[in-house]
Amino acid sequence: MKVALLGCGVVGSQVIRLMHEQSADLAARIGAPLELAGVAVRRLGRKRDVEVDPALLTTDAEALVARDDVDIVIEVIGGIEPARSLIVSALSGGKSVVTANKALLAEDGATLHEAARAGNGDLYFEASVAGAIPLLRPLRESLAGDHVNRVLGIVNGTTNYILDKMDTTGASFTDALEEAQTLGYAEADPTADVEGFDAAAKAAILAGLAFHSRVTAAEVHREGITEITATDVASAKEMGYVIKLLAICARSDDGRSFGVRVHPAMIPRTHPLAGVREAYNAVFVEAESAGQLMFYGKGAGGAPTASAVLGDLVAVARNRLAGARGPEESTYADLRAHPMGETVTRCHVALDVADKPGVLARVAELFAKHDVSIQTVRQEGHGDDAQLVIVTHRATDAALTATMEGLRELDIVRAVASVMRVEGDE
Amino acid sequence: MKVALLGCGVVGSQVIRLMHEQSADLAARIGAPLELAGVAVRRLGRKRDVEVDPALLTTDAEALVARDDVDIVIEVIGGIEPARSLIVSALSGGKSVVTANKALLAEDGATLHEAARAGNGDLYFEASVAGAIPLLRPLRESLAGDHVNRVLGIVNGTTNYILDKMDTTGASFTDALEEAQTLGYAEADPTADVEGFDAAAKAAILAGLAFHSRVTAAEVHREGITEITATDVASAKEMGYVIKLLAICARSDDGRSFGVRVHPAMIPRTHPLAGVREAYNAVFVEAESAGQLMFYGKGAGGAPTASAVLGDLVAVARNRLAGARGPEESTYADLRAHPMGETVTRCHVALDVADKPGVLARVAELFAKHDVSIQTVRQEGHGDDAQLVIVTHRATDAALTATMEGLRELDIVRAVASVMRVEGDE
Repeated sequence: MKVALLGCGVVGSQVIRLMHEQSADLAARIGAPLELAGVAVRRLGRKRDVEVDPALLTTDAEALVARDDVDIVIEVIGGIEPARSLIVSALSGGKSVVTANKALLAEDGATLHEAARAGNGDLYFEASVAGAIPLLRPLRESLAGDHVNRVLGIVNGTTNYILDKMDTTGASFTDALEEAQTLGYAEADPTADVEGFDAAAKAAILAGLAFHSRVTAAEVHREGITEITATDVASAKEMGYVIKLLAICARSDDGRSFGVRVHPAMIPRTHPLAGVREAYNAVFVEAESAGQLMFYGKGAGGAPTASAVLGDLVAVARNRLAGARGPEESTYADLRAHPMGETVTRCHVALDVADKPGVLARVAELFAKHDVSIQTVRQEGHGDDAQLVIVTHRATDAALTATMEGLRELDIVRAVASVMRVEGDE
Repeated sequence: MKVALLGCGVVGSQVIRLMHEQSADLAARIGAPLELAGVAVRRLGRKRDVEVDPALLTTDAEALVARDDVDIVIEVIGGIEPARSLIVSALSGGKSVVTANKALLAEDGATLHEAARAGNGDLYFEASVAGAIPLLRPLRESLAGDHVNRVLGIVNGTTNYILDKMDTTGASFTDALEEAQTLGYAEADPTADVEGFDAAAKAAILAGLAFHSRVTAAEVHREGITEITATDVASAKEMGYVIKLLAICARSDDGRSFGVRVHPAMIPRTHPLAGVREAYNAVFVEAESAGQLMFYGKGAGGAPTASAVLGDLVAVARNRLAGARGPEESTYADLRAHPMGETVTRCHVALDVADKPGVLARVAELFAKHDVSIQTVRQEGHGDDAQLVIVTHRATDAALTATMEGLRELDIVRAVASVMRVEGDE
């Protein structure tokens, strides 16, 4: 079974190492030995984390995936192009593909899945979401007889590391980010992580699998964590909550559509996701019969991601030997992703208010006007420190947004100090 | 695709309900509709939790599995016989089988797997361990390219409920058991749960999958939780630990054998398994490349178990449609399960001792004599309450056992008040 590897960076070099170190185990598990047919790289002379036979290296990725003797292509280049053309070319040529490319799957998964169908090959992508955590296979296969209602995931290790530091040490966002950069958990340009782009791509993939529909990253409502302050974190803590950046895929109450979004949210400290520390990832799934499930582990890094790639490689190789294919893309349900305004959530709001009688009455009236029901109110401080802290019952995002706009216009409200959605305690 | 169901109890009736309620989804996911061909029961007239067409019911299970038009057999009777004969008969007849029968798999899995191979059918058993939690598929498939070193699992909900109550309320074992029985978490005869038999069967299945070897329940070292006192629980709590009944499968340091055991153990409260409350299950896996993974969810109950059965049913049905088979039993590594004496653990020991100088020196000398190195010692109390609390470094169980025997013979030791293994903080 001949394997072509596209990319030899952090993940690719670990894939080569594991294919070499575990070759006897892999051969026994597959029923045939794996052979590395070639490795496509950008520059031949570069120093690498792993020893590679120079004869295997090539800068002509297109020629490598076109080779007749290649059975399986592993793509760990990332990004949209040339990854897409290479994968499509491999699949169209009847090869099977294993990829870790979340951005591509979330932008144009349909093209890849169609090419797989046309070429009668497999397209596996466990490594694209939550690194080493076996998550896509359980969603695609183990829960195939169940009905997933909701997925709540911590799918970005960088932001979890930052929020965890802010929670445990009281650090500001900027200081926590700097520490994450020093330790290699965050990149020099942290935008993709802290603005939620990375998590949004993963959310799109998860929603597609959970709801058997096609979802692209463009349909994901996305908010990052850059505006979270040490005060927000402390105030959440005081109320028994912790702030996490969540990827949330939730079926609507009538079951006919779903929402998919990435934003910071407060979750109760008793929730299984609350204990997910440092750069770990975890995904919480609520299914009708299975109930609550959680999958926890390392979401990134060379070796963990390579482990997921190798698991897919074994499955794909077994399928080819048996002349079979794994489960195809499943989009039969074809549900609609509804806009953020239709999403139903609870909300935590801190208002700086005038310290005089009747303030609560006027604020409560405004909430009522927008049909947003209040669960708890706490009045705190005096004079210039007077604050109202409100937690609402479930309401549509449109109603909550309108309420916040109304609050900003009330003369007795000096400022809307913070607004944060609350998840995981219904 | 015709399905025969053996057993219509708590799980079987949920399988029927889900097959009915989700029939359109299941057909779309499989690519062909499922049809219930018959349901084998012990008594025809019995009242059931689900409506079943009386024409489908039969007491002749053997005739049902022999029917030519049946493609897939689901076995949820449990126990060794007649389940084994029925499954073997179905597999020998070329049918695929989905079973939740942990006891049978742990006692005589080899016979079932051989019958599956001979008949060229599938044998799937996700529901046999940790109910709804997708665990066996990840171990069998997602981690097929990795090297599992250790599995630590809370795989019995009844005992976790009891230990959690003891931990949170300070209740005695007897009171916590009684509460569990009242709430339906424990059976009238709780032996299979509290003595660890149920967990031991699951440990055997997990070890077989993790180490690609054949393991039976007889090879599992087993200790229950009946002797755990409120004092043990309180003392663990004080030290930042919690007591859990763990199923542990661990490769030896030289990688040439493994240990498989079920016993109560102290784990640090910071360990992800420590937060597993009530009757939930969770399995913690350490793999060489993937690192630490955890799978969490409901380990029992009709609907959760049925969800796992249905997931297998979809996979098996897809395989048959494609003329393929899922992954076979993988026992190529053929590692040896070593006896408990060779298992290496840490240990927490509380000794009631004489309150006089030189006691610690003599106790320490005895540990040294057996090559057991001490990590921490705490001296507590005075006079008749004088106690030494010792936590050891890693040592073989044989050395620890010999040390305990030696301690019991020391005149300065009034009693070995408690001995408990410590896991999860190396």
